[in-house]
Amino acid sequence: MAWESLNPPRDYLKAGVRKPYRDVIDVSWGDPHRAGVKPLSFVRQVLAACLYPKLMEGDRLMVDVRQRAQRLLKECAGGSIGSYSNTAGIPEIVQRVSEFITRRDGGVPCRRENIFISSGSQWALNILKVLVNSEASPRTGVLTPVPCHSTTILSLMALGAAAVPYHLTEERGWALEVEELQRALDSAKGVCSPVALYVINPGNPAGYVQNRKSMQEVIRFAAEKRLFLLADEVYQDCVYGKTEFVSYKRALAEMGPPLSETVELASFHTASKGLMGECGLRAGYVELVNLDPAVMKHINSLFSTNSCAPVLGQIALDVMTNPPQPGDPSYPLYMKHIRTSLAENVRRVEEVVNSLPGFSCQPVEGGAFAFPTVFLPPKAIERAKEVGMKPDTFYCLRLLEEAGLLFSPGTEYGQKEGTYHIRFCIMIPLDVMEELLRRLSGFHKRFMKEFS
Amino acid sequence: MAWESLNPPRDYLKAGVRKPYRDVIDVSWGDPHRAGVKPLSFVRQVLAACLYPKLMEGDRLMVDVRQRAQRLLKECAGGSIGSYSNTAGIPEIVQRVSEFITRRDGGVPCRRENIFISSGSQWALNILKVLVNSEASPRTGVLTPVPCHSTTILSLMALGAAAVPYHLTEERGWALEVEELQRALDSAKGVCSPVALYVINPGNPAGYVQNRKSMQEVIRFAAEKRLFLLADEVYQDCVYGKTEFVSYKRALAEMGPPLSETVELASFHTASKGLMGECGLRAGYVELVNLDPAVMKHINSLFSTNSCAPVLGQIALDVMTNPPQPGDPSYPLYMKHIRTSLAENVRRVEEVVNSLPGFSCQPVEGGAFAFPTVFLPPKAIERAKEVGMKPDTFYCLRLLEEAGLLFSPGTEYGQKEGTYHIRFCIMIPLDVMEELLRRLSGFHKRFMKEFS
Repeated sequence: MAWESLNPPRDYLKAGVRKPYRDVIDVSWGDPHRAGVKPLSFVRQVLAACLYPKLMEGDRLMVDVRQRAQRLLKECAGGSIGSYSNTAGIPEIVQRVSEFITRRDGGVPCRRENIFISSGSQWALNILKVLVNSEASPRTGVLTPVPCHSTTILSLMALGAAAVPYHLTEERGWALEVEELQRALDSAKGVCSPVALYVINPGNPAGYVQNRKSMQEVIRFAAEKRLFLLADEVYQDCVYGKTEFVSYKRALAEMGPPLSETVELASFHTASKGLMGECGLRAGYVELVNLDPAVMKHINSLFSTNSCAPVLGQIALDVMTNPPQPGDPSYPLYMKHIRTSLAENVRRVEEVVNSLPGFSCQPVEGGAFAFPTVFLPPKAIERAKEVGMKPDTFYCLRLLEEAGLLFSPGTEYGQKEGTYHIRFCIMIPLDVMEELLRRLSGFHKRFMKEFS
Repeated sequence: MAWESLNPPRDYLKAGVRKPYRDVIDVSWGDPHRAGVKPLSFVRQVLAACLYPKLMEGDRLMVDVRQRAQRLLKECAGGSIGSYSNTAGIPEIVQRVSEFITRRDGGVPCRRENIFISSGSQWALNILKVLVNSEASPRTGVLTPVPCHSTTILSLMALGAAAVPYHLTEERGWALEVEELQRALDSAKGVCSPVALYVINPGNPAGYVQNRKSMQEVIRFAAEKRLFLLADEVYQDCVYGKTEFVSYKRALAEMGPPLSETVELASFHTASKGLMGECGLRAGYVELVNLDPAVMKHINSLFSTNSCAPVLGQIALDVMTNPPQPGDPSYPLYMKHIRTSLAENVRRVEEVVNSLPGFSCQPVEGGAFAFPTVFLPPKAIERAKEVGMKPDTFYCLRLLEEAGLLFSPGTEYGQKEGTYHIRFCIMIPLDVMEELLRRLSGFHKRFMKEFS
């Protein structure tokens, strides 16, 4: 992560240097547990029981936890989570993931052969290997949003592909507009040869949620330009506004033939993000739709030359896609955890940030991040240049040093020339959010005064 | 895995078709838990306590389990194994791994900056990316042993490198001989440009353990030919014969300057193999020695564009490299598990297999596999050709169908023209091994009679 270099301030905290804050609040990652969010008990109990089956003796764990763990262990080779699974995942878990997708999409069928469990949705981007010819000239291109989290861009570069940036329209709530896709496509002429369109919904770092109409336009565009659709839908559980999450798979199916039978789509999901937030377990899946059987064969062999995803991560995916149901003993507590809604965090962020001079935050409709614009005073921009930093990096560094808040600058994600943003994770306990907003407000006012 | 296609026979078992065996014994993987080996309690208890810290309340778990889990949780961001770690691993675990290596190598120092934890030793082969230029002509070559497990060869191919096979000398206990390395190097002329030499010690599938003298010869050869040494040492805990395991790092250090300061070496280890056998957790590490600082920079950025290894796997590595010590409450049970030695399995395999007509098994000095030669009768070879199979694949398929033993054929690993081998995992409970040998003996005698 590009911001690991910012960890040293913690070291001086440890070394006892006095700072005007007690501890750093690190909201630079999309990593809820790091920021103090507690894991879901049901998930952890099932995992612990699978790891150490002796825990299932007696009635210390609820009966549905024990039943789930017993079933899952039966599905592991040799009855142990310590054995390898099939490289695309434990077949029974793959089957249940596919059933979850069918339910989620209102009955649009999902075929289990199209699901591949991997050690994270980022890893699954490797399917691009079948699209990218690293020796091609001009290079293979992938249309990618601005702003966009940097791991995707780095993955594309590692595969030898070129990112072709298209801008989301901030003033319209970070809308994805087809005219801009067309402009981006035109811009690639003579530079690279675009084969895919990468969309993030709900957004990261920009917290938009696409509506059906917008998705249909994007799908038509992809069809017309013969672009493979890569849909990063890892925040599908995290929606706070009026627009409900609709998967690209569902939007595509609803459009009917010929589109529903021809547009090639990969949709990514993970146990790392959303309400579960189990980043450390490393597991995600990709669903592939409408791929040519010959290409599927390549993808199968791509997966089969790799080892399986961590088995405990696969089990977390099983729980994520098949949580406790009404009537199950663990259901009430599970729902209580799940309902610890982030809506209040989002409301407070919008309220406080928008009240600060020189800040503007679009509604956070979904995802895990706020990505407000900060209008930096010319003197601050000048000072940043003097010290050889991007202005928003300068702002974030000061914010860290003076207020103990570890944010990331918009520079890391791409932003329109002359605009500056900061990103911070909103998936944190409400009391931590209040402390964060208090520190941010105090710091920002001092900063603006200093450079006014 | 190439042999997944052989799973169907299990399906007919489930479907109730009568077979002359109760269940398939699958020893085609190096996957002890799959074959019925029980996980180490201490490992599983620490992992379960980290996952579900409530388990540490009361005294259900030994005090050293609780202390270990508490320390590890403090080292995780936000005190949760659900958060990301640094991409090279949790710094404190990396530090303890480096201390383990120093102890193992009799004090030869190990620098923590040279250790990278990844999601398995196979993944760590990606460091070859810095050596392999996929666009080079002629292609980059890597000297690889015959026999060799196929995952390495597949990884090399995926990176765009060419494998340059060198043969181990079966009749001398699968010895690695420098003359053969020279022959292999010569064979590459005009075909590819070798930059690295891959060695497996203890062997897989051939169960040799290299002695110091042989390693020194290999190191001198690598130095002279300027080859990067890639040492697969994942079975370092599994040694049954007279030759003790010496790491390439140690052998190199003992040779003194200039070699000890110049030969570039990567050594791989993992929690999947050896006595722990936690394949499903997905974690391993690589130690890099004598690499150019500029190359190390590349490797650092290679790791930093990836997500971290599964945190629970990292914790398993911590336990593997720092097991309970004399005086710790968990020590007696841990030692009892560890001492459930495989030496008796090995003795029985050599005894029984070598007593069968047409079989010859070199001493299994280390590793997880037996890889005996089977001298197939000409009529069997002919029949195999008729059905379009390699003779050893034909033998293994019959063995599966008639005796319920899932072995893998030598064809998968490479073998001298006209010789045939079978590989099977010896890390199985002793009663399973006895049943395996009973079935193998019965089947083999019938097979030899049928084709005599």
